[in-house]
Amino acid sequence: MGGDHGPAMLVAGASVALVRHPDIKFVLVGDERRIAPVLAAHPKLAEASSVRHTEVAVRMDERPSQALRRTRRDSSMWLALDAVKRDEADVAVSAGNTGALMAMATFCLRTMADIDRPAIAALWPTVRGESVVLDVGASIGADERHLVALAVMGAALARVVFDVERPRVGLLNVGTEEIKGIEQVKAAGKFLREADLPGLHYHGFVEGDDLGQGVCDVVVTEGFTGNIALKTAEGTARQIAAYLRSAMSRTLMARIGYLFARGAFDALREKMDPRRVNGGVFLGLDGVVIKSHGGADAVGVASAIDLAYDMAHFDLHAKIRDSLDHTLLLRRARPIPLVAGAA
Amino acid sequence: MGGDHGPAMLVAGASVALVRHPDIKFVLVGDERRIAPVLAAHPKLAEASSVRHTEVAVRMDERPSQALRRTRRDSSMWLALDAVKRDEADVAVSAGNTGALMAMATFCLRTMADIDRPAIAALWPTVRGESVVLDVGASIGADERHLVALAVMGAALARVVFDVERPRVGLLNVGTEEIKGIEQVKAAGKFLREADLPGLHYHGFVEGDDLGQGVCDVVVTEGFTGNIALKTAEGTARQIAAYLRSAMSRTLMARIGYLFARGAFDALREKMDPRRVNGGVFLGLDGVVIKSHGGADAVGVASAIDLAYDMAHFDLHAKIRDSLDHTLLLRRARPIPLVAGAA
Repeated sequence: MGGDHGPAMLVAGASVALVRHPDIKFVLVGDERRIAPVLAAHPKLAEASSVRHTEVAVRMDERPSQALRRTRRDSSMWLALDAVKRDEADVAVSAGNTGALMAMATFCLRTMADIDRPAIAALWPTVRGESVVLDVGASIGADERHLVALAVMGAALARVVFDVERPRVGLLNVGTEEIKGIEQVKAAGKFLREADLPGLHYHGFVEGDDLGQGVCDVVVTEGFTGNIALKTAEGTARQIAAYLRSAMSRTLMARIGYLFARGAFDALREKMDPRRVNGGVFLGLDGVVIKSHGGADAVGVASAIDLAYDMAHFDLHAKIRDSLDHTLLLRRARPIPLVAGAA
Repeated sequence: MGGDHGPAMLVAGASVALVRHPDIKFVLVGDERRIAPVLAAHPKLAEASSVRHTEVAVRMDERPSQALRRTRRDSSMWLALDAVKRDEADVAVSAGNTGALMAMATFCLRTMADIDRPAIAALWPTVRGESVVLDVGASIGADERHLVALAVMGAALARVVFDVERPRVGLLNVGTEEIKGIEQVKAAGKFLREADLPGLHYHGFVEGDDLGQGVCDVVVTEGFTGNIALKTAEGTARQIAAYLRSAMSRTLMARIGYLFARGAFDALREKMDPRRVNGGVFLGLDGVVIKSHGGADAVGVASAIDLAYDMAHFDLHAKIRDSLDHTLLLRRARPIPLVAGAA
């Protein structure tokens, strides 16, 4: 029921995703009176779907705490998460209120042992492919322990998505020299370097301009900075696209050039299309949840569902679990005050 | 003596700037044996310059505290700042070690009354022109009081650079709704809204993607996030430029199109040229200091000198002083615990 366009766009996106992955079964949770008419236009999807009716929906502008109080147990968001909890679904996908989704997912699915706070990971397009960047907005601030947990979870996600044995992990900082940056980032870097965890290769500090260069498979930062970096990159891409459009329409020669190079421009537009990488992965929960952009169209929603499919298919959840166990074992073997509360 | 290319590039940049502003007088501080030979190739510049000789220079990789200890009183960086302090120069421009420059500038020039920590402001290119963004890396973390000081100083800079009476000021945050974000940012927003300062119009929260849209004349954030946002934007611009180059050379049609649209591409390249906006402005010091990118070429150095020229010409320093006085008066008139230490 969420997102800027409601169930119609989610159904249309599911229909696109089903063509790519005909083995998906959908549980569509929401107001049946609004879902049924749009579903009727997609007979194949209707066949692969069951509808779980509820009239309660979280509003896009509702405060997380209020949504939790008002709609826990009966909203479409809650019921979708509950289906994951009850193993009736492998992944929950939502285009709804991010804060409410995070609050409800944490309440419904609980965090994994040793994880205090969940995170949101984004797949960041780079000149070499993609990187996992986290946290892009689940929570604000991070101590050493949380940064290390982010590194471990992000590496597990990268292993699944990029099929790399030991993903390169960098910590986002304001300088690459060891002397710079904030205390927590320095402490996390020291731990990751010394621990030499089996599931990841610690690269060191990276700066904002390394993100688009794909210097690392995984870039770790706390949620405030991560969210601002992500949106700054999106905004810069939009800004340059506007410059490009304006430059290509200004003179007759440019317009002729544009006609010749149209195929190249189309390829470029597709490469820069933010819908291709739609979907934030919630990490650290006992269950997999994907957040689609609220403003996503059918193509964007389908990308989020593709991502959900991969997460289920490659069993992301178990892989993160294993990675965390490794880290925990390591902590037990050595006197490092990591994941301290769980001893 | 600083920067990746040493005195040759700084002299070349000064020469370019002198053509645009023939009334500049330069004091070139550094090793005369290295400056004299390059200066000989620029007779007009040589006429407009005096050389202040010193053999001591801050190294690019030196820790700020070490640079301060080792080279205070006799390095080229110190002597340039000291010339500003003694009113022998209006502005100091350096391409050297940023951390050392900030430490030495703070030590030599001292902060303005009511300012605890200086800041670095960048001119951020937007689809509508430019915005002032600060702090882009002078210090990490900021409480309410420092964020308000950044807003006041940034607005004063915007007034000088953009010639706007009451620049629109936004606070960078992870969401535009009042409920989101960190406590300090919320508190600063509340103060700016209620204080309704004479020198600025408080716009509210802005997100990372608003930066490139030029939603505000001034965007305020603490130095860690600001530095990462700035570098992320630079990296994204470079990334898209790489995509574009690759797209335009892939097929014959694209190459033909490129030839036709060459003028447009050149205009675009110039628009995206990071050298055009080279120069971070140090704010909050009793004197004006401009930091040029260490890797800047002559065009970049000239941009930094242009900026320095404007700062001196429009008396930025006095205008910031006035704005801070206004804020201080306001604080005295009302029981708001802002700029608390200076009462």
